[in-house]
Amino acid sequence: MSKFQMRTDLALETREKFQEDNVEIKGVTIDEYYIDNSEIQITEVNIETENAAKAMGKPKGAYITLEAPNMMEPDEGYHREISDELAKQIQKLLPNQGKEQSVLVVGLGNRQVTPDALGPYVVDNLLITRHVVKEYGKYAMGKEEVNTVSSIVPGVMAQTGMEPVEVIGGIIKETSPDVIIVIDALAARNTKRLNRTIQITDTGINPGSGVGNHRSGINQESIGIPVIAIGIPTVVDAATIVQDTMKNLVDAMEEIQGGEKLGTAYDSLNDFEKYQLIQEVISPHLNGMFVTPKDIDETIKRLSFTLSEGLNIALQV
Amino acid sequence: MSKFQMRTDLALETREKFQEDNVEIKGVTIDEYYIDNSEIQITEVNIETENAAKAMGKPKGAYITLEAPNMMEPDEGYHREISDELAKQIQKLLPNQGKEQSVLVVGLGNRQVTPDALGPYVVDNLLITRHVVKEYGKYAMGKEEVNTVSSIVPGVMAQTGMEPVEVIGGIIKETSPDVIIVIDALAARNTKRLNRTIQITDTGINPGSGVGNHRSGINQESIGIPVIAIGIPTVVDAATIVQDTMKNLVDAMEEIQGGEKLGTAYDSLNDFEKYQLIQEVISPHLNGMFVTPKDIDETIKRLSFTLSEGLNIALQV
Amino acid sequence: MSKFQMRTDLALETREKFQEDNVEIKGVTIDEYYIDNSEIQITEVNIETENAAKAMGKPKGAYITLEAPNMMEPDEGYHREISDELAKQIQKLLPNQGKEQSVLVVGLGNRQVTPDALGPYVVDNLLITRHVVKEYGKYAMGKEEVNTVSSIVPGVMAQTGMEPVEVIGGIIKETSPDVIIVIDALAARNTKRLNRTIQITDTGINPGSGVGNHRSGINQESIGIPVIAIGIPTVVDAATIVQDTMKNLVDAMEEIQGGEKLGTAYDSLNDFEKYQLIQEVISPHLNGMFVTPKDIDETIKRLSFTLSEGLNIALQV
Amino acid sequence: MSKFQMRTDLALETREKFQEDNVEIKGVTIDEYYIDNSEIQITEVNIETENAAKAMGKPKGAYITLEAPNMMEPDEGYHREISDELAKQIQKLLPNQGKEQSVLVVGLGNRQVTPDALGPYVVDNLLITRHVVKEYGKYAMGKEEVNTVSSIVPGVMAQTGMEPVEVIGGIIKETSPDVIIVIDALAARNTKRLNRTIQITDTGINPGSGVGNHRSGINQESIGIPVIAIGIPTVVDAATIVQDTMKNLVDAMEEIQGGEKLGTAYDSLNDFEKYQLIQEVISPHLNGMFVTPKDIDETIKRLSFTLSEGLNIALQV
Repeated sequence: MSKFQMRTDLALETREKFQEDNVEIKGVTIDEYYIDNSEIQITEVNIETENAAKAMGKPKGAYITLEAPNMMEPDEGYHREISDELAKQIQKLLPNQGKEQSVLVVGLGNRQVTPDALGPYVVDNLLITRHVVKEYGKYAMGKEEVNTVSSIVPGVMAQTGMEPVEVIGGIIKETSPDVIIVIDALAARNTKRLNRTIQITDTGINPGSGVGNHRSGINQESIGIPVIAIGIPTVVDAATIVQDTMKNLVDAMEEIQGGEKLGTAYDSLNDFEKYQLIQEVISPHLNGMFVTPKDIDETIKRLSFTLSEGLNIALQV
Repeated sequence: MSKFQMRTDLALETREKFQEDNVEIKGVTIDEYYIDNSEIQITEVNIETENAAKAMGKPKGAYITLEAPNMMEPDEGYHREISDELAKQIQKLLPNQGKEQSVLVVGLGNRQVTPDALGPYVVDNLLITRHVVKEYGKYAMGKEEVNTVSSIVPGVMAQTGMEPVEVIGGIIKETSPDVIIVIDALAARNTKRLNRTIQITDTGINPGSGVGNHRSGINQESIGIPVIAIGIPTVVDAATIVQDTMKNLVDAMEEIQGGEKLGTAYDSLNDFEKYQLIQEVISPHLNGMFVTPKDIDETIKRLSFTLSEGLNIALQV
Repeated sequence: MSKFQMRTDLALETREKFQEDNVEIKGVTIDEYYIDNSEIQITEVNIETENAAKAMGKPKGAYITLEAPNMMEPDEGYHREISDELAKQIQKLLPNQGKEQSVLVVGLGNRQVTPDALGPYVVDNLLITRHVVKEYGKYAMGKEEVNTVSSIVPGVMAQTGMEPVEVIGGIIKETSPDVIIVIDALAARNTKRLNRTIQITDTGINPGSGVGNHRSGINQESIGIPVIAIGIPTVVDAATIVQDTMKNLVDAMEEIQGGEKLGTAYDSLNDFEKYQLIQEVISPHLNGMFVTPKDIDETIKRLSFTLSEGLNIALQV
Repeated sequence: MSKFQMRTDLALETREKFQEDNVEIKGVTIDEYYIDNSEIQITEVNIETENAAKAMGKPKGAYITLEAPNMMEPDEGYHREISDELAKQIQKLLPNQGKEQSVLVVGLGNRQVTPDALGPYVVDNLLITRHVVKEYGKYAMGKEEVNTVSSIVPGVMAQTGMEPVEVIGGIIKETSPDVIIVIDALAARNTKRLNRTIQITDTGINPGSGVGNHRSGINQESIGIPVIAIGIPTVVDAATIVQDTMKNLVDAMEEIQGGEKLGTAYDSLNDFEKYQLIQEVISPHLNGMFVTPKDIDETIKRLSFTLSEGLNIALQV
């Protein structure tokens, strides 16, 4: 088992890493299926025990991943089919499904750093109802039951001097929502998942490797109410890519040698030593660098529409 | 005395209107002076009694206006001389002057509506220290005494579903600042004051005619701690301009007639009737319209630097 | 007949002004109709003689106006019905209708001045084909006949040091398009037309009162090939609004007096003298000021989609 | 000698690669020095013969590199000291130094793709004089001799359907400048050069590996007048980083083995085979990916000020 933290926010990728290493973890269930008539693949990873949580480095709970290869491609209707499926998955994790509730949507991240701007952009396009319901009553919405939706972009600590969890905590005290939905840009391990994958989890945001590192735990424990987190990986850490390619290279060289072990100094290293060696040879200038596609500005805008549309569908009781 | 509310956020203009109408108000003091070696004019209006507050339509307190004709012109150093003077005026109104304190700066307004984006833009360029002091102690700042500065852009109600005062109230409960400084774009009556005038007041934000109408009272009464409000008029209401020009026209026509009253139906109307008549003839399409200079996008950016620089100077203990 | 230039880019409004003044102009035909099952009104003004052109202050040619009251309201599909109708009207004015041709679309205006950014924004969303056809042949487009579409944002003179017509002239020499379509933000006289009206004309751009004044004649005469101009009024000159309200006021006062003339100095002035008087009493600070709705940033973005979609439909042979 | 094209736009890095490979090239001179009292290092590479040009994969001419480690750090005055030195280096390459001339500055790249937006941003802040000189004469500038500066952002082919060289060619025919200065974002090989290095060359823009690939030769040959190109590397190709790290790893492993050759399949490969192997194991998803620092949005803005300020100083006769 790897001794070192792999840099990914996707439970799916953490589990894949175990598979690659031929390690089986008890207490993790996995369920994969395709949505009919679409290219959307759903993977549900459930971490069911504390031991499994420890091994995975992620809290107990449900992690639903929605993968759609064409998600980042232009499309006239912002991929309504993805938004529809996303709405269904969000509703599955919503406490009090189908009942009227008040929801605070939080757009984490930094509007001025493109790959980190997903959260703020999503919030820009939400249907916000709390102020209308509060002023005119829910009948103003033309329905008997209505969710009241509010939103906030708490900013990042370097700009506000406050942790997002402080801002959110204060607002919860003042406005008492039933549930929080947090949107955030994630980091993936594999570039093939960039801008093509949505993860929805009922475990909230937990300190990790995300784009902005603006995350010191926004979850039911820290906040007192259920937290659903929705994210899309928008970057891969530059060092991660180098490591993975390295591994592929070593495998390829072994094949060239007819399956024999390399018989080199590298071979004699264990996983952790290999990791340390790679860290040493990686240019120090790679720290703080990340890998994105060239059209990231437009991609983030497009993805934010898909997410906000999914939320708008999910939250209309 | 005018029966109708004139649309201005500037105490200076309210007082001017009384002067025009030859009405004297007790309980209002005024002090005007120029800063040496600069074109900056300071006007301090103090509303000292409840009666005066009622007459002026503004709460009791100090209103300092800093006028500088060249404020909106480009300048390499973002008008350091104006920032310096602004810093002095802010410090005069700060409670606990010269003592270490924690300050929350609030950028009111809507980042996506240019003339209303002043508050968010100012906050973008502030020196934020709270997180540094909290993590490393104030000695990390290299000083014995240090203000801890934090900031928030609470958004507008249509986007968040919450009143700014709710967001701010929650954050205060969570982070307990000593004083709040609110930045907002204002409405002026006279285009000559647009983007050339800074008002600083210890009365906070009070429901009024501002650009975004996002303001249901952010003051010591509603928030529990002192609130300093700093604003620059960035728009004039279109209807206001029409009314003022009309008045000039009537005056001009009287002069043509040799000082005689016009002797028309218009003459026989009192101020309120004149206002109503003008309201009727103003196109209904003027509602919600405002007047700005063409280069407003760039002007707002430039002004926001002057303000944030002034705050940065004022808040460095 | 008015001696002074009214500030509008809309032939429709120029003609209205004549109607108000009860002046009939020979050589101008007008045709108005509604599009079935929509709120879209089409008005076709044709200036047919040089005399009429002189009187109207606009060149001979066709001016089609498409008015839709809901144009500036949000709508999921960017008002496809308006884009469809716009496409039909554009095709009516295109020389060589239905034949394969090469079209250069020019986005006039300044991307950094919101009400003047319409042209650049429209160009951002066009389907551009010239480079594809040039590299892979028109069969790459899957059709026997195909228009080749290219575009340019020539910038404004203050930024480039060149008149847009110089930039366009150079590009024409280099790439030889068959026709030019110029997009520009216009000035209207009446706020009710702001952001609700599209004018399409085969007379090109002629020196006038537009938002950016970046227009020294872009027409068949100066450029050598047909020029279609498409514009939406996004601003009203602040002085114009004052003048018009003034006129309404005088009319209203006459009514109060029972239809009698006012019997004042103002009465004795002729139109030109009245105009001069009003100019005098208008605050000099109104020069360079214009009137826009508060949500102009978002409105311009939305309108630009409606225009670019209309162009995309019109230009697909 | 490497058989494959290394992905860099910097002549400095191409030469370094030869040094690493212990290959000497005739016909290339190199001169390195530091600017007194600053951390700015200047490297002048001159490619003097056609053979050297072939070997280097870059045209004959002068390549001046200005490296300043603090270039991307915030600084109140946009690094005036760098702008001053840049101005001197630009003037060295300007034909007709010190004489009055007309200069067209071209901002290559795509304003909507952050790392590719350097060119457009630089042009935004230039002092443009052509229109003033043309309208009022050069005495309006208060000088006997004056350069006339104009600028254009030609856009990228996907947006305009035209190659930048077509747009520029047309404008030259129309306005006849004496010299062109092209600004473009570059690709580097080494992340340590990102956003810290300015290259100035009199060879223009030549088909290569730049960020936007919007470059089919903008040089004296294609355009007919001298072309100076100024660029800053803003990205590194993701695949390049992997390759370089790989090389470091192999070197490190050899050291572990006490300087012995690895004695593996990898050893037996020549440079080109190694390159091919690495290409195979690199994830296909890395294609089109690039590496940038997280704060690229702000960095590009800051660098663009340093460049435009340098140009403004250089072009004021």
